[in-house]
Amino acid sequence: MVQSLDSRDSGFEAAFLALLAMKREVDEDVDQAVAAILAEVRSRGDAALIEYTARFDRLELTPATLRITAQEVETAYASCDPELIRALELAAERIRAFHARQVPVDDSFTDAAGVRLGLRWSPVSAAGLYVPGGTAAYPSSVLMNAIPAKAAGVERLVMVVPSPGGVLNPLVLAAAKVAGVDEIYRVGGAQAVGALAYGTGTIRPVDKIVGPGNAWVAAAKRRVFGTVGIDMIAGPSEILVVADRFNDPSWIAADLLSQAEHDTAAQSILITDDAEFGQRVAAAVESHLATLPRAKIARESWDSHGAIIVVPDLEASLPLIDRIAPEHLELAVENPDALAARVRNAGAIFLGRYTPEAVGDYIGGPNHVLPTARSARFSSGLGVLDFMKRTTLLGCDADSLRAIGPAAVRLAEAEGLGAHGLSVALRLNLGAG
Amino acid sequence: MVQSLDSRDSGFEAAFLALLAMKREVDEDVDQAVAAILAEVRSRGDAALIEYTARFDRLELTPATLRITAQEVETAYASCDPELIRALELAAERIRAFHARQVPVDDSFTDAAGVRLGLRWSPVSAAGLYVPGGTAAYPSSVLMNAIPAKAAGVERLVMVVPSPGGVLNPLVLAAAKVAGVDEIYRVGGAQAVGALAYGTGTIRPVDKIVGPGNAWVAAAKRRVFGTVGIDMIAGPSEILVVADRFNDPSWIAADLLSQAEHDTAAQSILITDDAEFGQRVAAAVESHLATLPRAKIARESWDSHGAIIVVPDLEASLPLIDRIAPEHLELAVENPDALAARVRNAGAIFLGRYTPEAVGDYIGGPNHVLPTARSARFSSGLGVLDFMKRTTLLGCDADSLRAIGPAAVRLAEAEGLGAHGLSVALRLNLGAG
Repeated sequence: MVQSLDSRDSGFEAAFLALLAMKREVDEDVDQAVAAILAEVRSRGDAALIEYTARFDRLELTPATLRITAQEVETAYASCDPELIRALELAAERIRAFHARQVPVDDSFTDAAGVRLGLRWSPVSAAGLYVPGGTAAYPSSVLMNAIPAKAAGVERLVMVVPSPGGVLNPLVLAAAKVAGVDEIYRVGGAQAVGALAYGTGTIRPVDKIVGPGNAWVAAAKRRVFGTVGIDMIAGPSEILVVADRFNDPSWIAADLLSQAEHDTAAQSILITDDAEFGQRVAAAVESHLATLPRAKIARESWDSHGAIIVVPDLEASLPLIDRIAPEHLELAVENPDALAARVRNAGAIFLGRYTPEAVGDYIGGPNHVLPTARSARFSSGLGVLDFMKRTTLLGCDADSLRAIGPAAVRLAEAEGLGAHGLSVALRLNLGAG
Repeated sequence: MVQSLDSRDSGFEAAFLALLAMKREVDEDVDQAVAAILAEVRSRGDAALIEYTARFDRLELTPATLRITAQEVETAYASCDPELIRALELAAERIRAFHARQVPVDDSFTDAAGVRLGLRWSPVSAAGLYVPGGTAAYPSSVLMNAIPAKAAGVERLVMVVPSPGGVLNPLVLAAAKVAGVDEIYRVGGAQAVGALAYGTGTIRPVDKIVGPGNAWVAAAKRRVFGTVGIDMIAGPSEILVVADRFNDPSWIAADLLSQAEHDTAAQSILITDDAEFGQRVAAAVESHLATLPRAKIARESWDSHGAIIVVPDLEASLPLIDRIAPEHLELAVENPDALAARVRNAGAIFLGRYTPEAVGDYIGGPNHVLPTARSARFSSGLGVLDFMKRTTLLGCDADSLRAIGPAAVRLAEAEGLGAHGLSVALRLNLGAG
């Protein structure tokens, strides 16, 4: 049975806090093993990478076969159902259109003191994209991670994907082709992250590594952070659906299950202003679970981590939304825009009764890599800016330095930094002379 | 003697790699002690915070005296040299003007399929600013960290600053007043970071923590990351000066020393196209060191980590600049803009002979919190965006879902995610019916 809360109950605050604090992820302590793998790849390069791939993926490689050839990619692409390729291409086109609008503009101006100022954006030179193998090999994730990098202008986009026993999902390779990935290597795990960060004889290092992965990959990304940039370390998926009684309970139940089926650690929460509607959704969940292929996973997630929260009116959902700070927020209400305008913390918002979250996972255009575990309070989904960096520019001449330099000298002296002051003062004397 | 390299020498590549890989920071293993402090503050709140402050700062506090009162701030402000206050205010005004231009615009549009799409920026609700006590209590850092937060629209900006033995730098409090900090607490160390992240009876928790600190503060920030957002963990400061022979060697020497005087682990590098000019700069460094107040620190940094690199022409400096990816890049050359336009990796660029880096530390306008240790390859200086987050919006109606939904169903099925497909398909049937 899923947990039911009512915001008017005296025990609500404690129960809500428990829901927020619920520990869903299982810690897997692989950090020391990962450290050893990274050290080996760093010092022995290809040889270590090939040894680990033989051990973990049961695949014998040589430096010459590490890379997946363009011909292999073409063959994989040609083997896919053309309808699926068309769906991938439509998704890519929509994701590209949404992300292209995020490319920031540079700033450059001269202020009243005559100081030239600027801010310039530039892409990272090379980015690495980790793609899991096996059941979690999702072509949609390839698009969502690769297309923002290309929209940012990343010149060299390198994908790594393990192929246990030599088996690869052709649709993943097709997605890489559609997204414009430049190089693909058939390696995975911590060893692939190490190869991207440090480089090997065959794989040149990158500047930033993104993409989902298991505990080994996450631990490796944490460890190489600093040597390269990394994206967020994603936790289990979450959805918060706010729905009034004018929805079809069956639709809302399917939406809740679309996160629950990802992972037993996923969390699906319904907030409604109608307790009876909540019960009808709970019943519809049971009904869907009878037929869904991933019912076992979804049921465990729903029973362990799901919740139905009844509020007196939709207004009362707002503070709860912001405290949950959901990865995905679905507003299946009459006037979703008015509610959305008042939400502070959410990774992505899905507006109205005809926008199931799943349409955003694949085809909407916005990114599906989103902040989990309440981190939407301070962080954002993946976007073009994650593959860019800013450089500021400052230019004085003798006159403008004379205008602003004396204040710098004064502050430097107050901070006891003599050479700072001296470097300005020398120029002021000469500038004035 | 400072290290000299010539890019035409056969041993250059090895020596340059060694310079890049030079380990400058001393690891201080305080992580376990920090974990214990954080756990205590998390479970016992104010009581633990007060105990640690008594132990580490020799200061007895109560919940009522944790906060620095508005009256104390006013008194501190009034006690400062009015010339210094004017310098702080000019700096604040210029930093505010530069950062206000970084506030991003939201996006909202309806595409050809009739899908409504949007991207909305919002500030984090509350931010914490760590300010070190003692000798590293820099009012300029208060401005550089606080003003972008306020420009972003952060409603509640909370500063923590230790006051060992009860002593505080009045100029730091004055800077907090000028920058618009909302609350100030006289606590520091890992315990203050814990208080900001978890909250105590007196200090409400924040969503993001920024600001420099010692090894304890850095370890605490790493540990609370996830519960809150953090800024970068800054390494020792660096400057790279590219200078031709038409500069005054004394000016360039002062610029190099302005980073060297920060920290024995700082790194100052000169690239020049004239070996003899390089030697004159080295001589000028010696001459300045005879009189500078922080000569001991600066000399150790310069002798251990400094370098003069001679290149055949300025063009040859470009690949070296990008590989160093300096925190600060000074281009003291005839046509700095042409060179700057071709630099990919640098935190901040200072253009021309009259723009010593120190003017940017205080008064230029751009931020002085910048990426160190080659991380300018993938990260940026502090800015308004560090205090904001994005929420994407997606809205379909029955018609637009009919246009794009079938592709989502197809991809969901290919990924084996039945509930994803179901949540779209249910609406398509009804939408079509």
